[in-house]
Amino acid sequence: MSKPSLARGTRDFGPEQMVKRTFILDTIRQTFQRFGFQPLETPTIENLSVLMGKYGEEGDQLLFKILNSGEFSAKLTAQDWQGDAKQLTTKIAEKGLRYDLTVPFARYVVMNRGTLAMPFKRYQIQPVWRADRPQKGRYREFYQCDADVVGTDSLLCEAEIVMMLHESLRNLGIQHFTVKINNRKILTGIAEVIGAPGLEGPLCVAIDKLDKIGREKVMQELHERGFTEEGTSKLTPIFDISSEKQPFAILKNWLSSSEIALKGIEELKQVWSMVEDFGLENPQLQFDVTLARGLSYYTGAIFEVKAHQPDGTPVHIGSISGGGRYDNLTGTFGVPGLSGVGISLGVDRIYDVMEELDLFPADQSITTRVLLTNFDEAAGRYGLRILKSLRDAGINAEMYPDAVKLKKQLDYADRKQVPYVVLIGSQEMETGLLTLKNMKTGEQNAVSVNEIIELVKAGLGS
Amino acid sequence: MSKPSLARGTRDFGPEQMVKRTFILDTIRQTFQRFGFQPLETPTIENLSVLMGKYGEEGDQLLFKILNSGEFSAKLTAQDWQGDAKQLTTKIAEKGLRYDLTVPFARYVVMNRGTLAMPFKRYQIQPVWRADRPQKGRYREFYQCDADVVGTDSLLCEAEIVMMLHESLRNLGIQHFTVKINNRKILTGIAEVIGAPGLEGPLCVAIDKLDKIGREKVMQELHERGFTEEGTSKLTPIFDISSEKQPFAILKNWLSSSEIALKGIEELKQVWSMVEDFGLENPQLQFDVTLARGLSYYTGAIFEVKAHQPDGTPVHIGSISGGGRYDNLTGTFGVPGLSGVGISLGVDRIYDVMEELDLFPADQSITTRVLLTNFDEAAGRYGLRILKSLRDAGINAEMYPDAVKLKKQLDYADRKQVPYVVLIGSQEMETGLLTLKNMKTGEQNAVSVNEIIELVKAGLGS
Repeated sequence: MSKPSLARGTRDFGPEQMVKRTFILDTIRQTFQRFGFQPLETPTIENLSVLMGKYGEEGDQLLFKILNSGEFSAKLTAQDWQGDAKQLTTKIAEKGLRYDLTVPFARYVVMNRGTLAMPFKRYQIQPVWRADRPQKGRYREFYQCDADVVGTDSLLCEAEIVMMLHESLRNLGIQHFTVKINNRKILTGIAEVIGAPGLEGPLCVAIDKLDKIGREKVMQELHERGFTEEGTSKLTPIFDISSEKQPFAILKNWLSSSEIALKGIEELKQVWSMVEDFGLENPQLQFDVTLARGLSYYTGAIFEVKAHQPDGTPVHIGSISGGGRYDNLTGTFGVPGLSGVGISLGVDRIYDVMEELDLFPADQSITTRVLLTNFDEAAGRYGLRILKSLRDAGINAEMYPDAVKLKKQLDYADRKQVPYVVLIGSQEMETGLLTLKNMKTGEQNAVSVNEIIELVKAGLGS
Repeated sequence: MSKPSLARGTRDFGPEQMVKRTFILDTIRQTFQRFGFQPLETPTIENLSVLMGKYGEEGDQLLFKILNSGEFSAKLTAQDWQGDAKQLTTKIAEKGLRYDLTVPFARYVVMNRGTLAMPFKRYQIQPVWRADRPQKGRYREFYQCDADVVGTDSLLCEAEIVMMLHESLRNLGIQHFTVKINNRKILTGIAEVIGAPGLEGPLCVAIDKLDKIGREKVMQELHERGFTEEGTSKLTPIFDISSEKQPFAILKNWLSSSEIALKGIEELKQVWSMVEDFGLENPQLQFDVTLARGLSYYTGAIFEVKAHQPDGTPVHIGSISGGGRYDNLTGTFGVPGLSGVGISLGVDRIYDVMEELDLFPADQSITTRVLLTNFDEAAGRYGLRILKSLRDAGINAEMYPDAVKLKKQLDYADRKQVPYVVLIGSQEMETGLLTLKNMKTGEQNAVSVNEIIELVKAGLGS
């Protein structure tokens, strides 16, 4: 028999990782709820007619497709077999796995728009699947945490998202981060001003590399892509502007000839001033004119979050969150005109950041707090009622199931990181006082059940 | 553009259902943790080599299989196409979707047995997929909640499971239920005693129908299946025994000639007396000699739970939980001799029971508690700091994003079942006192922010 293995690009999450992941997901969930977002879950399996054509050609290829059940090959012709895999796939696979949380959300809104309270604020925390080549840090199955408001173009939603990002990260214990903000309308305006209207796409692709390749090479790339020297010479302000936190005046001056840019600047300014009105302590909001993030999708605000070391150096390549305003969530399903704004938090990256900065709290609600030892039949029986008392008091507790050597039982407590062990032997049964062993200090005390409950609960609070 | 639809047999869970499902899953999760079980999650996608052959031939067919990526059909021969779908599947699909939580658990234990603290107590709450024909109440994607202990054959684990079932259901608010218990060894012994050793399988299939078809037809079926008149005449006690709650004496007397039956009776008795030693209030444990549940798998205790109306009539056809002791979890992966015992709770059925009996509490931790109205720019801005104060106090709160008619804003609060609305207009901004509207009673009061926090928190506690 061959050794079993995991499918490529997938992971098990054992108890230790689950405790940490649960902390992340519960914290995000609670924060989203604090802001009035409601939970939604959509199925793992969607009809391919819902998924295909929504993620570009590459996305279509990265969709995991499910083979039809039964005699799926019976009606196929030689021509079907000899054609390309893409054609054949349409004949033998009708369903696929969820690729992101946005398209299923759009499908849900379209199918339920008669009954939803609009504007609809939903959050969704579920895994998605992509048939990508697995590499370090990139998996074929991973969680996304999305929060979106649809059915309004109020800029309050953008300000709320800035607030919610700050609150989520601080609740997780991540104190050092930057919430970057930009606006698609400003990018559109820049393209106009440099005489390349509609070309903000290739413009952004090049500018996005500024950090990596430097100003000169960005210019070179732009010229190769057909931007004129005259045009790119007008780009100069872009290279300095992001060092200013609120560069509204510079932007207005620079882009005064573009109506859409001025609208974008005004939007940005309003979001900023609402965040101020909220009274957010120590806001970490920063304008970044180079921020584009899959531009084609966004129509207004664009967000991205990066975490830092306490000294300001970045923790992890890539962002831990991103999002923005879009104007046509459901257009692809025939329901146009629904504007929305949302963000997505990357659980794996947040996990890595928190590991690197050692930010995970010792979670005490999930793991076992007390292990009762099992010396022999009589002592084991005697312990059952004590076990129940501990649990009734809200303490996670268990008894070692077999009457084996104490060393083995203590070793079990150690491996499971159980902080307290209660020893029950003949002496304990006679006196009614139990021996409580603190596994960290090694200290042992003779105490009553009620005292154990008090001690352990005091430890829970700390 | 065609209207989007859900894949057959799948469901969306909107906010209202999610609130209820989250209550169920969180309650179960917490109870499992209280008993020292630790969380595990395994991937949705498993290699078919792990899944195939583990669920019988029917199970193999019900597995959802994932089409290989890329040019999967390039190397196929005419022979491959013309063969049956089963053969062809092995050439174009290497991965499948999780079918239950037991096989992935076994795979995990085998792959990690060097590092796991044994006995290993894990719980796992995840969806599974089956390409079944969808019908009312049967879905292709549904959650399972499993808890298992492996690596010990201590009967304490069986007693713990009885305790945990009581605790889980009572924590959910389900007060009226029966935990049925049987033991495979008793069934094996009965087959011996009636002169049909090894035939407890067909015996159980027939006896299982007792409730539905009655004693006479059960006998008829047994004779058709080749059981002798002489043998089945010795079955008489089976028809009366389950009305006794603890029929150890009758069982011993009846099955005294079978060593294995006597061992099973002894096990049953021990589990029972441990539950008594725990001091469980009002235990709902009942012996049921007809309980078999996929017999081939179980080697000791067998469990099943049914919910009732307060008057004792059953709530729902079928059980809400089942499980038992097995002796060879990992044998199929080449690691023999690992004994375990576990249960599985059916989330969909528990949901239906709780709906039918109206047991869901009004959950206040997930939904929005306070909506702030939005009259105009100035009032909206004024409200932002109040919104933050409410959230900082732990209250889920939101502001209506647009300055539309009050009726529309109140209608939104109604549809979202928000219990309090705070009205902010010019008067409120002048006096600093806000108008708090109780959406249930219609009552309105002029109050300060701190009073709102107190009032809403008092409501949270109730």
